[in-house]
Amino acid sequence: MAHWMRFDHEGSVGFGTISDGAINVHVGDMFESPKATDVLLALDDVVPLLPAPAGKMVALWNNSRAMAAKTGQSEPEEPLYFIKGNGSYLPTGGVIRKPTTYDGKVIFEGELGIVIGQVCRDVAESDSNEHIFGYTCINDVTAIGLLGRDPSFQQWTRAKSFDTFGVFGPVVATGLDPITLSIRTVLNDQERQHYPVSDLFFSPGRMVSAISRDMTLHPGDVICCGTSTGVGSMRPGDIVEVTIDGVGTLRNRYDDK
Amino acid sequence: MAHWMRFDHEGSVGFGTISDGAINVHVGDMFESPKATDVLLALDDVVPLLPAPAGKMVALWNNSRAMAAKTGQSEPEEPLYFIKGNGSYLPTGGVIRKPTTYDGKVIFEGELGIVIGQVCRDVAESDSNEHIFGYTCINDVTAIGLLGRDPSFQQWTRAKSFDTFGVFGPVVATGLDPITLSIRTVLNDQERQHYPVSDLFFSPGRMVSAISRDMTLHPGDVICCGTSTGVGSMRPGDIVEVTIDGVGTLRNRYDDK
Repeated sequence: MAHWMRFDHEGSVGFGTISDGAINVHVGDMFESPKATDVLLALDDVVPLLPAPAGKMVALWNNSRAMAAKTGQSEPEEPLYFIKGNGSYLPTGGVIRKPTTYDGKVIFEGELGIVIGQVCRDVAESDSNEHIFGYTCINDVTAIGLLGRDPSFQQWTRAKSFDTFGVFGPVVATGLDPITLSIRTVLNDQERQHYPVSDLFFSPGRMVSAISRDMTLHPGDVICCGTSTGVGSMRPGDIVEVTIDGVGTLRNRYDDK
Repeated sequence: MAHWMRFDHEGSVGFGTISDGAINVHVGDMFESPKATDVLLALDDVVPLLPAPAGKMVALWNNSRAMAAKTGQSEPEEPLYFIKGNGSYLPTGGVIRKPTTYDGKVIFEGELGIVIGQVCRDVAESDSNEHIFGYTCINDVTAIGLLGRDPSFQQWTRAKSFDTFGVFGPVVATGLDPITLSIRTVLNDQERQHYPVSDLFFSPGRMVSAISRDMTLHPGDVICCGTSTGVGSMRPGDIVEVTIDGVGTLRNRYDDK
């Protein structure tokens, strides 16, 4: 089990594993036999970046039993997903910005994120684990009022792809059994979401398998597993934290400037 | 005016401009002051790759007056778009593969593609041209039966993002006035689509401006401008060509193996 992060240290980008409040700097490819160096950096001396070199971000809708029960959706026959634009990615500590072209509600959605570690194509559910590098915290920020604004076309991509809306980190944790995890979202110190991964219709292994049959997944691709009940609006100045015990806390401020 | 392409030559990737059947190899960044070398390569001695280092692909729906009239859609108030997964990209000459997880119709959609050359954020329509590197031919391949299969969720991303479904090339042509162009799609030597860019609801300049207000566009990002009437199914063994005079012909075979 390890906690991987990427960072900026005095203008240089690096990556490594965290233990005892320090980063053990590694070199090479994070997903393919990275090598530890002798260098240790204090966590306080770096700025966290996206925790892994990120590829595409595939995000599920209607994957929570509790949320489906609340909103009157039935269990989907297959994973229903969209892609969040790669320009939207934001690490922990970054500021989520209110769009300039949209005046409606902007909501937080705390989720589990799966980070792919090996090329996946037509992977059986039983082999999914080998292709998963680890897990991260996601805030799948959404301009919720855009989704249905045009009755002829659901604007999933647009509502989810504004700059700074694809928030994930602070680390990628390896060696976890995802089914034991739970996701907690805290807005300004008030808990707003708290749900177990076991409540998802599609488990991480099933998602990776199903999506890999549609499109090849590559190291660094991220799957956002879909959120549960308790999502809500953010107002300028709000602080949102998504915590998964065993992974860490993704913490961001929302602002209009 | 120039025609840019990327290629594989004896295992090395390069890029350059085409004239008189030869490639003038360039070095540096295609979008930022590329430098011509003295090296000329015969077109026949290279394998064409994607014509530019490709970022994200933003694709419009309902952007053709003729198509809207035929299908009973009204003019959208704003560009309606989704993202095609970056794993779907395929250059000219590549084989478009039938998905293994889907048995329905797979259709071709000939379109104009805009290739971004400079970082675009909140760009005015009048300034769009400076941010556009050039134009390319698109075949926005679609597993059309997936779109409405789940009544609660339009599966745009999935229907459009299977491996090999994001086809573009053969070149990026610079120095063109896009409003003068027309798109022609030929299936097995039969013309199936032929429509002018002037029939699009949103011109290239308006699209770039509008999308840049939602999300930052980066050099290499591609906007698929949406298709018109005449789209249709492909069967294994079919050859599809998308031609834009002044740009070139994107030619691919569709197959199930």
